[in-house]
Amino acid sequence: MKRIFYLIVLAGFAAGMVACGNAMDKNDKPGVNPTLETIAQRHSVRRYTGQKVSKDTIDMLLRAAMAAPSSKDRRPWQFVVVDDRATLDTLGSRLPFASMLAHVPQALVVCGDSDLSESWFLDCSAATQNFLLAAQATGLAAVWTGVYPNADRIVTVQEELNLPPNIMPLAVVPFGYGDGLEQPKDKFDASRIHYNKW
Amino acid sequence: MKRIFYLIVLAGFAAGMVACGNAMDKNDKPGVNPTLETIAQRHSVRRYTGQKVSKDTIDMLLRAAMAAPSSKDRRPWQFVVVDDRATLDTLGSRLPFASMLAHVPQALVVCGDSDLSESWFLDCSAATQNFLLAAQATGLAAVWTGVYPNADRIVTVQEELNLPPNIMPLAVVPFGYGDGLEQPKDKFDASRIHYNKW
Repeated sequence: MKRIFYLIVLAGFAAGMVACGNAMDKNDKPGVNPTLETIAQRHSVRRYTGQKVSKDTIDMLLRAAMAAPSSKDRRPWQFVVVDDRATLDTLGSRLPFASMLAHVPQALVVCGDSDLSESWFLDCSAATQNFLLAAQATGLAAVWTGVYPNADRIVTVQEELNLPPNIMPLAVVPFGYGDGLEQPKDKFDASRIHYNKW
Repeated sequence: MKRIFYLIVLAGFAAGMVACGNAMDKNDKPGVNPTLETIAQRHSVRRYTGQKVSKDTIDMLLRAAMAAPSSKDRRPWQFVVVDDRATLDTLGSRLPFASMLAHVPQALVVCGDSDLSESWFLDCSAATQNFLLAAQATGLAAVWTGVYPNADRIVTVQEELNLPPNIMPLAVVPFGYGDGLEQPKDKFDASRIHYNKW
Protein backbone atom coordinates (compact mmCIF):
# COMPACT_ATOMS: atom_id res chain seq x y z
CA MET A 1 0.00 0.00 0.00
CA LYS A 2 2.83 2.37 0.96
CA ARG A 3 4.57 1.63 -2.36
CA ILE A 4 1.38 2.39 -4.34
CA PHE A 5 1.00 5.64 -2.43
CA TYR A 6 4.54 6.70 -3.37
CA LEU A 7 3.97 5.68 -6.99
CA ILE A 8 0.80 7.75 -7.19
CA VAL A 9 2.54 10.81 -5.69
CA LEU A 10 5.49 10.32 -8.04
CA ALA A 11 3.19 10.09 -11.07
CA GLY A 12 1.48 13.31 -10.04
CA PHE A 13 4.85 14.98 -9.44
CA ALA A 14 6.10 13.97 -12.88
CA ALA A 15 2.86 15.18 -14.48
CA GLY A 16 3.33 18.51 -12.70
CA MET A 17 6.92 18.84 -13.97
CA VAL A 18 5.81 18.00 -17.53
CA ALA A 19 2.93 20.47 -17.39
CA CYS A 20 5.27 23.15 -16.12
CA GLY A 21 7.83 22.28 -18.81
CA ASN A 22 5.19 22.66 -21.50
CA ALA A 23 4.22 26.04 -20.11
CA MET A 24 7.90 27.05 -20.19
CA ASP A 25 8.22 25.90 -23.80
CA LYS A 26 5.49 28.26 -24.83
CA ASN A 27 6.57 31.26 -22.81
CA ASP A 28 10.33 31.02 -22.65
CA LYS A 29 11.18 29.23 -25.90
CA PRO A 30 14.36 27.46 -24.81
CA GLY A 31 17.05 27.86 -27.48
CA VAL A 32 15.78 31.31 -28.46
CA ASN A 33 17.90 34.21 -27.21
CA PRO A 34 15.33 36.63 -25.75
CA THR A 35 17.25 39.76 -26.75
CA LEU A 36 17.79 38.58 -30.34
CA GLU A 37 14.08 37.72 -30.41
CA THR A 38 13.16 41.22 -29.22
CA ILE A 39 15.41 42.76 -31.88
CA ALA A 40 13.86 40.56 -34.59
CA GLN A 41 10.28 41.14 -33.44
CA ARG A 42 10.53 44.92 -32.99
CA HIS A 43 8.60 46.75 -35.69
CA SER A 44 7.03 50.11 -36.30
CA VAL A 45 3.49 50.26 -34.92
CA ARG A 46 1.13 52.95 -36.13
CA ARG A 47 -2.16 51.82 -34.53
CA TYR A 48 -2.69 51.99 -30.77
CA THR A 49 -5.36 51.35 -28.17
CA GLY A 50 -6.25 54.29 -25.93
CA GLN A 51 -4.57 52.72 -22.87
CA LYS A 52 -2.09 55.00 -21.13
CA VAL A 53 1.40 53.86 -20.14
CA SER A 54 2.24 54.38 -16.45
CA LYS A 55 4.95 56.80 -15.32
CA ASP A 56 6.94 53.92 -13.79
CA THR A 57 6.96 52.08 -17.10
CA ILE A 58 7.98 55.22 -18.98
CA ASP A 59 10.87 55.72 -16.52
CA MET A 60 11.92 52.11 -17.16
CA LEU A 61 11.92 52.72 -20.92
CA LEU A 62 13.93 55.92 -20.48
CA ARG A 63 16.42 54.09 -18.25
CA ALA A 64 17.01 51.80 -21.23
CA ALA A 65 17.33 54.81 -23.56
CA MET A 66 19.97 56.38 -21.31
CA ALA A 67 22.00 53.15 -21.29
CA ALA A 68 23.04 53.90 -24.87
CA PRO A 69 26.67 54.62 -25.72
CA SER A 70 27.65 58.18 -26.61
CA SER A 71 30.67 59.86 -28.07
CA LYS A 72 33.15 60.68 -25.28
CA ASP A 73 30.38 59.58 -22.87
CA ARG A 74 28.82 63.04 -23.19
CA ARG A 75 25.22 61.68 -22.97
CA PRO A 76 23.76 64.59 -24.94
CA TRP A 77 20.17 63.26 -24.81
CA GLN A 78 17.15 65.08 -23.42
CA PHE A 79 13.68 63.56 -23.45
CA VAL A 80 10.28 65.22 -23.54
CA VAL A 81 7.36 62.92 -22.64
CA VAL A 82 4.22 64.38 -24.22
CA ASP A 83 0.81 63.27 -22.96
CA ASP A 84 -1.03 66.55 -23.34
CA ARG A 85 -3.82 65.86 -25.85
CA ALA A 86 -3.64 69.29 -27.51
CA THR A 87 0.15 69.08 -27.98
CA LEU A 88 -0.09 65.56 -29.44
CA ASP A 89 -2.82 66.70 -31.85
CA THR A 90 -0.89 69.80 -32.94
CA LEU A 91 2.31 67.83 -33.53
CA GLY A 92 0.31 65.20 -35.42
CA SER A 93 -1.23 67.75 -37.72
CA ARG A 94 1.97 69.75 -38.34
CA LEU A 95 4.40 66.85 -38.84
CA PRO A 96 4.27 64.53 -41.86
CA PHE A 97 4.26 60.79 -41.10
CA ALA A 98 3.10 61.43 -37.52
CA SER A 99 -0.69 61.44 -37.92
CA MET A 100 -0.93 58.51 -35.46
CA LEU A 101 -0.27 61.10 -32.71
CA ALA A 102 -4.01 61.85 -32.91
CA HIS A 103 -4.76 58.31 -31.67
CA VAL A 104 -2.02 57.55 -29.12
CA PRO A 105 -2.10 58.70 -25.46
CA GLN A 106 1.60 59.62 -25.30
CA ALA A 107 4.76 60.13 -27.32
CA LEU A 108 8.42 60.61 -26.57
CA VAL A 109 10.33 63.44 -28.20
CA VAL A 110 14.00 62.51 -28.29
CA CYS A 111 16.23 65.57 -28.33
CA GLY A 112 19.95 66.22 -28.23
CA ASP A 113 22.02 69.06 -26.84
CA SER A 114 24.01 70.24 -29.86
CA ASP A 115 26.24 72.36 -27.60
CA LEU A 116 27.31 69.23 -25.72
CA SER A 117 28.29 66.99 -28.62
CA GLU A 118 28.87 67.31 -32.35
CA SER A 119 27.50 63.81 -32.81
CA TRP A 120 24.42 64.22 -30.60
CA PHE A 121 22.21 62.86 -33.42
CA LEU A 122 24.11 59.55 -33.50
CA ASP A 123 24.10 59.13 -29.71
CA CYS A 124 20.41 60.00 -29.60
CA SER A 125 19.67 57.50 -32.39
CA ALA A 126 21.24 54.76 -30.29
CA ALA A 127 19.15 55.92 -27.31
CA THR A 128 16.01 55.91 -29.47
CA GLN A 129 16.74 52.36 -30.63
CA ASN A 130 17.16 51.26 -27.00
CA PHE A 131 13.79 52.85 -26.21
CA LEU A 132 12.08 51.03 -29.11
CA LEU A 133 13.58 47.70 -28.03
CA ALA A 134 12.66 48.23 -24.38
CA ALA A 135 9.08 48.93 -25.47
CA GLN A 136 8.99 45.76 -27.57
CA ALA A 137 10.47 43.75 -24.71
CA THR A 138 7.79 44.88 -22.28
CA GLY A 139 4.76 44.30 -24.49
CA LEU A 140 4.51 47.85 -25.73
CA ALA A 141 4.84 49.24 -29.23
CA ALA A 142 6.39 52.35 -30.73
CA VAL A 143 7.37 54.02 -33.97
CA TRP A 144 10.27 56.36 -34.80
CA THR A 145 9.01 59.31 -36.83
CA GLY A 146 11.88 61.43 -38.07
CA VAL A 147 12.40 65.11 -37.28
CA TYR A 148 16.14 65.84 -37.68
CA PRO A 149 17.70 66.61 -40.18
CA ASN A 150 14.55 68.14 -41.76
CA ALA A 151 14.70 71.90 -41.03
CA ASP A 152 10.92 72.48 -41.16
CA ARG A 153 10.17 69.66 -38.76
CA ILE A 154 12.91 70.80 -36.37
CA VAL A 155 11.38 74.28 -36.16
CA THR A 156 7.88 72.84 -35.69
CA VAL A 157 8.90 70.72 -32.71
CA GLN A 158 11.09 73.43 -31.19
CA GLU A 159 8.13 75.83 -31.36
CA GLU A 160 5.54 73.42 -29.95
CA LEU A 161 7.71 72.23 -27.06
CA ASN A 162 9.39 75.55 -26.36
CA LEU A 163 12.86 74.05 -26.87
CA PRO A 164 15.95 76.24 -26.52
CA PRO A 165 17.86 76.67 -29.83
CA ASN A 166 20.62 74.21 -28.82
CA ILE A 167 18.10 71.47 -27.93
CA MET A 168 17.54 69.74 -31.25
CA PRO A 169 14.64 67.31 -31.75
CA LEU A 170 15.75 64.09 -33.41
CA ALA A 171 12.52 62.10 -33.45
CA VAL A 172 8.95 61.99 -32.26
CA VAL A 173 8.17 58.49 -31.01
CA PRO A 174 4.49 57.66 -30.43
CA PHE A 175 4.34 54.68 -28.08
CA GLY A 176 1.79 52.67 -26.14
CA TYR A 177 -0.26 49.51 -26.49
CA GLY A 178 -0.38 48.44 -30.12
CA ASP A 179 -3.42 46.83 -31.70
CA GLY A 180 -1.30 43.73 -32.33
CA LEU A 181 -2.03 43.47 -36.04
CA GLU A 182 1.20 44.89 -37.48
CA GLN A 183 4.04 42.41 -38.02
CA PRO A 184 7.86 42.51 -38.21
CA LYS A 185 9.70 42.04 -41.51
CA ASP A 186 12.73 39.85 -42.17
CA LYS A 187 15.21 42.41 -43.52
CA PHE A 188 18.36 40.27 -43.62
CA ASP A 189 20.20 40.82 -46.91
CA ALA A 190 23.51 39.00 -47.38
CA SER A 191 24.44 41.34 -50.24
CA ARG A 192 24.98 44.11 -47.68
CA ILE A 193 27.86 42.21 -46.08
CA HIS A 194 31.39 42.73 -47.44
CA TYR A 195 34.72 41.35 -46.29
CA ASN A 196 37.85 43.46 -45.78
CA LYS A 197 37.47 45.59 -48.93
CA TRP A 198 34.50 46.92 -50.88
CA MET B 1 -11.09 6.05 -1.71
CA LYS B 2 -11.43 7.57 -5.17
CA ARG B 3 -11.44 11.06 -3.65
CA ILE B 4 -8.26 10.27 -1.65
CA PHE B 5 -6.61 8.98 -4.85
CA TYR B 6 -7.36 12.23 -6.68
CA LEU B 7 -6.13 14.29 -3.73
CA ILE B 8 -2.83 12.38 -3.64
CA VAL B 9 -2.29 12.82 -7.41
CA LEU B 10 -3.18 16.48 -7.11
CA ALA B 11 -0.70 16.97 -4.25
CA GLY B 12 2.05 15.31 -6.29
CA PHE B 13 1.13 17.43 -9.33
CA ALA B 14 1.30 20.63 -7.27
CA ALA B 15 4.66 19.57 -5.79
CA GLY B 16 5.95 18.96 -9.32
CA MET B 17 4.83 22.40 -10.45
CA VAL B 18 6.46 24.02 -7.41
CA ALA B 19 9.73 22.10 -7.92
CA CYS B 20 9.77 23.15 -11.56
CA GLY B 21 9.00 26.75 -10.56
CA ASN B 22 11.97 26.76 -8.19
CA ALA B 23 14.24 25.50 -10.97
CA MET B 24 12.96 28.31 -13.18
CA ASP B 25 13.67 30.85 -10.44
CA LYS B 26 17.35 30.03 -10.47
CA ASN B 27 17.87 29.89 -14.21
CA ASP B 28 15.55 32.52 -15.59
CA LYS B 29 15.65 35.21 -12.88
CA PRO B 30 11.92 35.93 -12.78
CA GLY B 31 11.30 39.63 -12.57
CA VAL B 32 14.32 40.40 -14.73
CA ASN B 33 13.47 41.16 -18.34
CA PRO B 34 16.32 39.63 -20.39
CA THR B 35 16.27 42.38 -23.03
CA LEU B 36 16.27 45.19 -20.47
CA GLU B 37 19.11 43.36 -18.72
CA THR B 38 21.09 43.19 -21.98
CA ILE B 39 20.51 46.90 -22.58
CA ALA B 40 21.63 47.74 -19.02
CA GLN B 41 24.67 45.45 -19.12
CA ARG B 42 25.97 46.50 -22.56
CA HIS B 43 29.11 48.58 -22.29
CA SER B 44 32.08 49.59 -24.37
CA VAL B 45 34.83 46.99 -24.23
CA ARG B 46 38.35 47.92 -25.27
CA ARG B 47 40.30 44.80 -24.25
CA TYR B 48 39.83 41.49 -26.06
CA THR B 49 41.17 37.97 -26.07
CA GLY B 50 42.60 36.75 -29.37
CA GLN B 51 39.67 34.37 -29.99
CA LYS B 52 38.03 34.75 -33.40
CA VAL B 53 34.27 35.01 -33.84
CA SER B 54 32.78 32.48 -36.27
CA LYS B 55 31.16 33.52 -39.55
CA ASP B 56 27.81 32.09 -38.40
CA THR B 57 27.90 34.23 -35.27
CA ILE B 58 28.85 37.32 -37.26
CA ASP B 59 25.91 36.67 -39.62
CA MET B 60 23.63 36.38 -36.58
CA LEU B 61 24.89 39.75 -35.27
CA LEU B 62 24.39 41.34 -38.70
CA ARG B 63 20.88 39.90 -38.90
CA ALA B 64 20.19 41.85 -35.70
CA ALA B 65 21.80 44.98 -37.18
CA MET B 66 19.59 44.76 -40.28
CA ALA B 67 16.45 44.48 -38.12
CA ALA B 68 16.81 48.19 -37.28
CA PRO B 69 14.21 50.69 -38.43
CA SER B 70 15.12 53.08 -41.23
CA SER B 71 13.61 56.19 -42.71
CA LYS B 72 11.08 55.20 -45.40
CA ASP B 73 12.36 51.62 -44.92
CA ARG B 74 15.28 52.44 -47.25
CA ARG B 75 17.75 50.23 -45.27
CA PRO B 76 20.78 52.28 -46.36
CA TRP B 77 23.28 50.18 -44.36
CA GLN B 78 26.30 48.38 -45.77
CA PHE B 79 28.67 46.38 -43.56
CA VAL B 80 32.34 45.59 -44.02
CA VAL B 81 33.65 42.81 -41.78
CA VAL B 82 37.41 43.29 -41.39
CA ASP B 83 39.54 40.39 -40.17
CA ASP B 84 42.65 41.07 -42.25
CA ARG B 85 45.41 41.75 -39.72
CA ALA B 86 47.15 44.41 -41.82
CA THR B 87 43.91 46.33 -42.42
CA LEU B 88 43.02 46.23 -38.71
CA ASP B 89 46.50 47.47 -37.79
CA THR B 90 46.44 50.28 -40.36
CA LEU B 91 42.98 51.46 -39.28
CA GLY B 92 44.09 51.26 -35.64
CA SER B 93 47.12 53.43 -36.25
CA ARG B 94 45.36 55.99 -38.48
CA LEU B 95 42.16 56.45 -36.45
CA PRO B 96 42.09 58.09 -33.02
CA PHE B 97 40.29 56.14 -30.26
CA ALA B 98 40.62 52.88 -32.21
CA SER B 99 44.01 51.61 -31.02
CA MET B 100 42.33 48.43 -29.71
CA LEU B 101 42.14 47.32 -33.36
CA ALA B 102 45.75 46.16 -32.91
CA HIS B 103 44.56 43.57 -30.38
CA VAL B 104 41.19 42.34 -31.69
CA PRO B 105 40.78 39.66 -34.38
CA GLN B 106 37.92 41.42 -36.19
CA ALA B 107 35.95 44.63 -36.50
CA LEU B 108 32.78 45.73 -38.22
CA VAL B 109 32.77 48.90 -40.30
CA VAL B 110 29.21 50.20 -40.44
CA CYS B 111 28.60 52.25 -43.58
CA GLY B 112 25.63 53.99 -45.14
CA ASP B 113 24.68 54.70 -48.73
CA SER B 114 24.26 58.46 -48.77
CA ASP B 115 22.63 58.27 -52.22
CA LEU B 116 19.88 56.06 -50.80
CA SER B 117 18.85 58.13 -47.79
CA GLU B 118 19.48 61.59 -46.40
CA SER B 119 19.27 60.17 -42.89
CA TRP B 120 21.55 57.16 -43.50
CA PHE B 121 23.61 58.09 -40.41
CA LEU B 122 20.57 57.82 -38.11
CA ASP B 123 19.40 54.50 -39.59
CA CYS B 124 22.94 53.15 -39.39
CA SER B 125 23.25 54.28 -35.77
CA ALA B 126 20.17 52.24 -34.91
CA ALA B 127 21.69 49.27 -36.77
CA THR B 128 24.97 49.73 -34.88
CA GLN B 129 23.13 49.77 -31.56
CA ASN B 130 21.34 46.54 -32.50
CA PHE B 131 24.73 45.00 -33.33
CA LEU B 132 26.18 46.06 -29.96
CA LEU B 133 23.19 44.63 -28.08
CA ALA B 134 23.24 41.37 -30.05
CA ALA B 135 26.93 41.02 -29.17
CA GLN B 136 26.21 41.63 -25.48
CA ALA B 137 23.31 39.17 -25.56
CA THR B 138 25.47 36.38 -26.98
CA GLY B 139 28.44 36.74 -24.63
CA LEU B 140 30.50 38.92 -26.94
CA ALA B 141 31.73 42.46 -26.49
CA ALA B 142 32.11 45.45 -28.77
CA VAL B 143 32.83 49.17 -28.86
CA TRP B 144 31.54 51.90 -31.18
CA THR B 145 34.43 54.09 -32.34
CA GLY B 146 33.17 57.09 -34.25
CA VAL B 147 34.07 57.94 -37.84
CA TYR B 148 31.24 60.12 -39.24
CA PRO B 149 30.90 63.13 -39.07
CA ASN B 150 34.69 63.65 -38.76
CA ALA B 151 35.98 64.42 -42.30
CA ASP B 152 39.54 63.11 -41.74
CA ARG B 153 38.35 59.80 -40.34
CA ILE B 154 35.83 59.37 -43.16
CA VAL B 155 38.58 59.77 -45.77
CA THR B 156 40.87 57.39 -43.88
CA VAL B 157 38.30 54.59 -43.81
CA GLN B 158 37.15 55.19 -47.39
CA GLU B 159 40.79 54.91 -48.53
CA GLU B 160 41.62 51.80 -46.52
CA LEU B 161 38.47 49.88 -47.49
CA ASN B 162 38.25 51.20 -51.04
CA LEU B 163 34.75 52.55 -50.45
CA PRO B 164 32.89 54.35 -53.27
CA PRO B 165 32.30 58.06 -52.53
CA ASN B 166 28.61 57.54 -51.69
CA ILE B 167 29.38 54.78 -49.17
CA MET B 168 30.02 56.70 -45.98
CA PRO B 169 31.62 55.05 -42.96
CA LEU B 170 29.71 55.77 -39.74
CA ALA B 171 31.68 53.73 -37.22
CA VAL B 172 34.42 51.17 -36.77
CA VAL B 173 33.26 48.58 -34.24
CA PRO B 174 35.94 46.25 -32.85
CA PHE B 175 34.19 43.17 -31.47
CA GLY B 176 35.02 39.77 -30.04
CA TYR B 177 35.52 38.10 -26.70
CA GLY B 178 36.16 40.71 -24.00
CA ASP B 179 38.51 40.14 -21.11
CA GLY B 180 35.53 40.51 -18.76
CA LEU B 181 37.04 43.21 -16.57
CA GLU B 182 35.20 46.27 -17.90
CA GLN B 183 31.84 47.06 -16.34
CA PRO B 184 28.62 48.88 -17.32
CA LYS B 185 27.70 52.26 -15.81
CA ASP B 186 24.31 53.34 -14.48
CA LYS B 187 23.62 56.41 -16.61
CA PHE B 188 19.99 57.09 -15.61
CA ASP B 189 19.51 60.80 -14.96
CA ALA B 190 15.99 61.96 -14.08
CA SER B 191 16.93 65.57 -14.89
CA ARG B 192 16.96 64.63 -18.58
CA ILE B 193 13.24 63.86 -18.53
CA HIS B 194 10.77 66.66 -19.24
CA TYR B 195 6.98 66.66 -19.51
CA ASN B 196 5.06 68.29 -22.36
CA LYS B 197 7.14 71.50 -22.51
CA TRP B 198 10.79 72.32 -21.89
